Amino acid sequence: MNYYSEKDIRDIVAGVLAQSGLSASAASDEPAAAERGEPIPVEVSARHVHLTQEALDVLFGKGYCLTPKKELSQPGQFAAEEHVKLVTRKGAMESVSVLGPVRKHVQVELSATDARALGVQLPVRLSGDLDGAGDMLLMGPKGVYEAKACAIIARAHVHMTPEQAARWNVRDGQTLSVQMDTARPVTLDGVIARVSGDAGLAVHIDVDEANAAAVTPDTVGYIVKRG
Amino acid sequence: MNYYSEKDIRDIVAGVLAQSGLSASAASDEPAAAERGEPIPVEVSARHVHLTQEALDVLFGKGYCLTPKKELSQPGQFAAEEHVKLVTRKGAMESVSVLGPVRKHVQVELSATDARALGVQLPVRLSGDLDGAGDMLLMGPKGVYEAKACAIIARAHVHMTPEQAARWNVRDGQTLSVQMDTARPVTLDGVIARVSGDAGLAVHIDVDEANAAAVTPDTVGYIVKRG
Repeated sequence: MNYYSEKDIRDIVAGVLAQSGLSASAASDEPAAAERGEPIPVEVSARHVHLTQEALDVLFGKGYCLTPKKELSQPGQFAAEEHVKLVTRKGAMESVSVLGPVRKHVQVELSATDARALGVQLPVRLSGDLDGAGDMLLMGPKGVYEAKACAIIARAHVHMTPEQAARWNVRDGQTLSVQMDTARPVTLDGVIARVSGDAGLAVHIDVDEANAAAVTPDTVGYIVKRG
Repeated sequence: MNYYSEKDIRDIVAGVLAQSGLSASAASDEPAAAERGEPIPVEVSARHVHLTQEALDVLFGKGYCLTPKKELSQPGQFAAEEHVKLVTRKGAMESVSVLGPVRKHVQVELSATDARALGVQLPVRLSGDLDGAGDMLLMGPKGVYEAKACAIIARAHVHMTPEQAARWNVRDGQTLSVQMDTARPVTLDGVIARVSGDAGLAVHIDVDEANAAAVTPDTVGYIVKRG
């Protein structure tokens, strides 16, 4: 018969819990509330586009500058007064928000519901990763911009500063499970940590994820597992 | 330093798992795949209505019988050839599927996305629970039926026979967490077990939940936690 030390047992228990989708800290003496950590605000991103200056020139006129309408939680980012129309072979979507400031790449972020309405298949990608992204036309008051390999369904992510990442015990790029205790509780198991100095603490999800979890403006998320 | 036998460790692990709401069987020698149990097919319910004979009479004509088009996974249930139009003060939705056979209560099951499109607030309810359900008009070729307190967003649920419930270690009415390992992995934490003799094994989710999890026809769910 083999015998095991208390450390062995802790390791075994931690292993079982990890396999069961629970954190090893559940085996510790900490109170239950602390196990899932502090809450993080959940923000819902509706469909939107990011534009380059080149695309702005085509859509709104040469040298055009976006007009900030509302500040977003990520410092310096804003929803603009301007809107564009999205057009595919199979559908169109009016008055889609433009976010500023301008970026190096045009990016269209839609929900799977939107993609179906537009009759296009889009990959789920982290913002900035346009591998396999879809094509569509953007229409503005001054012209049409052909957005090739620009459209994605955004992967859920959490923005944190390095200090916050340390506090939540998270690495940049790590895959996290984020639980939302709503009327329709859901755990998103593929949330990516985005750690940067100028981040505003928030979990960003799309409208389908928000609807699946019956998210309200008060909804918060808890990191319950680290990949 | 204390030492423990393998039996002690099994008991400790079983205790930890029991506290975590997991079954002690996860501590057995079965492979990891068995710990989260066997897969269960995931089926996506698009928007649909269940009608009474009285509603059928109004919508399609006195004594009307639904025409089965396609059998569903629940024995005896079918999608009918017939469709209705939904109308609210703020919107309308054409060609919504009617499921048969007729029931004792009219029930309209929509996604949160649909509810928003129709401009109504609907509660998330298990099928059959119409507490706080929404109102709308149903329009058929022969008339208009006023569906009062009939419209809900369906709570995700899993259909099982008593034998399957025993195999998956689940009680009727129990709240379960069901994990879907998709390209956009999600765990639904409020899935209700519906155990009945004539059930067809399936997790039923709505289109928002399917989109949030990038569900495909092959997607299966695993019960990872029992409430």
